[in-house]
Amino acid sequence: MAFDPDGLRFDDAGLIPAIAQDASSGAVLMMAWMNAEAVRRTLETGRVTYWSRSRQAFWVKGETSGNLQHLVEMRIDCDADCLLLQVRQDGPACHTGRQSCFYTAIRDGDAVEIMRPA
Amino acid sequence: MAFDPDGLRFDDAGLIPAIAQDASSGAVLMMAWMNAEAVRRTLETGRVTYWSRSRQAFWVKGETSGNLQHLVEMRIDCDADCLLLQVRQDGPACHTGRQSCFYTAIRDGDAVEIMRPA
Repeated sequence: MAFDPDGLRFDDAGLIPAIAQDASSGAVLMMAWMNAEAVRRTLETGRVTYWSRSRQAFWVKGETSGNLQHLVEMRIDCDADCLLLQVRQDGPACHTGRQSCFYTAIRDGDAVEIMRPA
Repeated sequence: MAFDPDGLRFDDAGLIPAIAQDASSGAVLMMAWMNAEAVRRTLETGRVTYWSRSRQAFWVKGETSGNLQHLVEMRIDCDADCLLLQVRQDGPACHTGRQSCFYTAIRDGDAVEIMRPA
């Protein structure tokens, strides 16, 4: 069945959450947002392109830093309101220099850093 | 540093997205939403508890189906507006009987089913 980005279920702001996962290691790298046009550009260019809610602009991940996300495969969930992006990540995904944005764990009631910048 | 669920960045509806990942296989299983009390209950009980937006009620994952999600570790991202749950999943995570909700891939412009019900 032909995939139509407009058939996804976007929120009231026209956005859908997109989870980026390292295609080889399986590490969950980050979560950000896309609109229909960002989904389209990601599929067309193979470079993961989000919609920045703070800047209200398209955001080609890594365009400034060089830490691009190359799309390996896009997947959609059962109710079409979330995307899973299998990616090949150049450099660290997090703006803090860490491989993943999820570098803080809750352990015994404390927030603990479990990953250092590369 | 002591973790306070109220310190998370919730959206205007008081919710934060929570990604469930199989702690052993690394498979991303699903994404759902939590409010501060759901985060608290998940940490206290070790059973992943979401907030159902459709039912406007707490949703102990698997309470009806038996397919519980046991929390292995909760992680938060760099800007504290998304959670990553490392879980041990009883049975399939998806209500369709599939291991993961992300069973549809976009390949050559088509939506393709890549996972069958268990």
